[in-house]
Amino acid sequence: MTLIDLARNNELAPRIVKTAEIENVSPEFLRAGLANGTMVIPWAQGHELSRPCAVGDGLSVKINANIGTSPDAGDISGELEKLKAAVDAGAHAVMDLSTGGNLREIRKSIRDACPVSLGSVPMYEAGYMAIDSGRTFRQMTAGDMLKAVRLHVADGVDFITVHCGVTLRAVEYLKKNRRVCGVVSRGGALLARWMVANNQENPLFERFDEVIDICRETDCTLSLGDGLRPGALADAGDRAQIEELYTLGELAARAQKRGVQVIIEGPGHVPFDQIAMQMKLEKRACNNAPFYVLGPLVTDIAPGYDHLVCAIGGTMAAVNGANFLCYVTPAEHLRLPDASDVREGVIATRIAAHAADIANGIPGARDWDDKMSAARKSRDWEKMFELAIDPEFARASRAKAPSAKEDACSMCGDFCALKGEDYF
Amino acid sequence: MTLIDLARNNELAPRIVKTAEIENVSPEFLRAGLANGTMVIPWAQGHELSRPCAVGDGLSVKINANIGTSPDAGDISGELEKLKAAVDAGAHAVMDLSTGGNLREIRKSIRDACPVSLGSVPMYEAGYMAIDSGRTFRQMTAGDMLKAVRLHVADGVDFITVHCGVTLRAVEYLKKNRRVCGVVSRGGALLARWMVANNQENPLFERFDEVIDICRETDCTLSLGDGLRPGALADAGDRAQIEELYTLGELAARAQKRGVQVIIEGPGHVPFDQIAMQMKLEKRACNNAPFYVLGPLVTDIAPGYDHLVCAIGGTMAAVNGANFLCYVTPAEHLRLPDASDVREGVIATRIAAHAADIANGIPGARDWDDKMSAARKSRDWEKMFELAIDPEFARASRAKAPSAKEDACSMCGDFCALKGEDYF
Repeated sequence: MTLIDLARNNELAPRIVKTAEIENVSPEFLRAGLANGTMVIPWAQGHELSRPCAVGDGLSVKINANIGTSPDAGDISGELEKLKAAVDAGAHAVMDLSTGGNLREIRKSIRDACPVSLGSVPMYEAGYMAIDSGRTFRQMTAGDMLKAVRLHVADGVDFITVHCGVTLRAVEYLKKNRRVCGVVSRGGALLARWMVANNQENPLFERFDEVIDICRETDCTLSLGDGLRPGALADAGDRAQIEELYTLGELAARAQKRGVQVIIEGPGHVPFDQIAMQMKLEKRACNNAPFYVLGPLVTDIAPGYDHLVCAIGGTMAAVNGANFLCYVTPAEHLRLPDASDVREGVIATRIAAHAADIANGIPGARDWDDKMSAARKSRDWEKMFELAIDPEFARASRAKAPSAKEDACSMCGDFCALKGEDYF
Repeated sequence: MTLIDLARNNELAPRIVKTAEIENVSPEFLRAGLANGTMVIPWAQGHELSRPCAVGDGLSVKINANIGTSPDAGDISGELEKLKAAVDAGAHAVMDLSTGGNLREIRKSIRDACPVSLGSVPMYEAGYMAIDSGRTFRQMTAGDMLKAVRLHVADGVDFITVHCGVTLRAVEYLKKNRRVCGVVSRGGALLARWMVANNQENPLFERFDEVIDICRETDCTLSLGDGLRPGALADAGDRAQIEELYTLGELAARAQKRGVQVIIEGPGHVPFDQIAMQMKLEKRACNNAPFYVLGPLVTDIAPGYDHLVCAIGGTMAAVNGANFLCYVTPAEHLRLPDASDVREGVIATRIAAHAADIANGIPGARDWDDKMSAARKSRDWEKMFELAIDPEFARASRAKAPSAKEDACSMCGDFCALKGEDYF
């Protein structure tokens, strides 16, 4: 029995009860959301998870941090350091996107150390299998792909990204309407090139029922990847992207019907004025399934600052329906992030999520801000540091001020606006 | 004759022509905006300005960087360093908010070194005059205030912030509806306390015609300050704030009628879902006068990251009518910024402004992004660095990657999504 099965039976499974406690909502609220597919709890059976979360409409916005090795940097200790940085900074989920080193060993190490939901991308493993056995990516087989899905689920990850919506029809649209930046999803590109080279339909689409069967085994949540997400403002909302989105909506309904939880993945690079539309379109096309967006990045011109670009788009997205924000680090578009980038990316994305929670009226969200503002009014520095989203950083920054030890704020001295004895 | 006088006479003054060239719009477009008060060119007569700008509806969003000494740190060389950092990073305007050291000398030094519009806040000077002559802030006179306005305008600043809308009636609302964070505008607090202590109406409100007369002398733009802006999410949109806003709208009409250009200043700390409303309300209350916002900050809990918080709110604001974004630096709420904070604040705010320009359909705005995305697709690192909003920072970040010198992006190696020979 999966969580959806139980929810539909009106059963409050222990995973639902524990998650509801952490989310500060009633178990019944989660049960209803699970039953109708508007919420998920990405928590595989058998995985000890000290910080589970639920994702979906009516809940606070959750954030994910991507970590993982590359062919250039396959060191596992570096990944465990990034994992710790992400978790300590407050990520609700982590994805292992490793493509270098011993993928399975890395995944298991991360899983054992991970107190939050863990996601992974089996397609990289399928590519790796081909390369590892002396073949090229184009010589992957449909069997490799399904085998990789099976392997990841068996290893006990809580959710997997599978690019089931990259169909020959969608790829045909790419040919007709050339993009500025092509396909930027690694899994999506791998798959699309394989399909074109072999003139075959996407096995993960054709054999979607098998994917469902595999996920049912551990109640692994299916995160339907957006292999054709736009990687440039110019490409946002093109026909290929929306073709894939509607396919994902149909696949989501099939998986949910069979008791498998589904998240829909989304863009990517999107101009600010198109974000609300994109969010509402996903809700329409995918019957309000939880929406998991990467960004969106509202400009292409700021490498080094893409965590900030992403926080702008992420807030707007989450106010218009996105439920799960994948972070972007300051290293995006430049290099792999290190632990410090991971930390900064998580904080930036948490700020976006919190700003959206306030705007969305999530009960209690603004209490935090009100406490901070009261501490500011009374110039209680210790309290301000405690309440800061990054106490350590705030404290260190303040310590640079010449009058940091005084009650007076270093900014204004006698001109302090807050020092009044009046009613303001 | 002021720019408004000339514009109403259908005359294309040299200041209009030069600014139009820089703005890449027709002089006639600016002339019409100046004539009807929806645009300003903050450029005082007699000020040599190599990088003037226009601010208003239909134009790209402009950004301002605040610099200035404090009683703790009155060193002028530090301010000139910050000025250079702001200008080099692309600020369109700078405000000198000095409250420590020899204010007039500092102002003149900054003015002489400043290639962009320079603004200042005479109220600090008025407070300083009182203190300097052995009186308290509460013993300031109406004469001090008018004298300070005269002094700043005579010193040739391009725009002045004057808190003319802090009326006894507005202050009364503060008493009735207590705020979490009181009055956070330094000028506003100084003035309001003076009014309460002396039981007198705001001289800058009562003697507004004199303020207009003074501004006419050099065609100094009047930036009507929001002395009662909210300093906490909890205080956003309260009756005192909106009372002041409507007063500013009435004063704006009076100044514009007499040929003085007007900018309206706005919040502050505002929940994301209230930003659009606040922007539209300003347009309604102030007859579409250019709106200059500080932030808005969409959460109170992120000291150390408030440049990012401000970029989120600034984008949303600028898409809904804000024309001029005052930056916030990572030092906000903690200490005075140094040159590096200034730089980071300007970049963050430029990102917000650019994201809004794209969303607002400003002609040519997205070309920059499209060029970057094309460079990304062809993995042309040199071109990407050149196009980056902060080339130096992007280059330094990239240099940390293990394979930074190779054509392959360090992130994916063989898994690169962009390396295809296909049509995507």
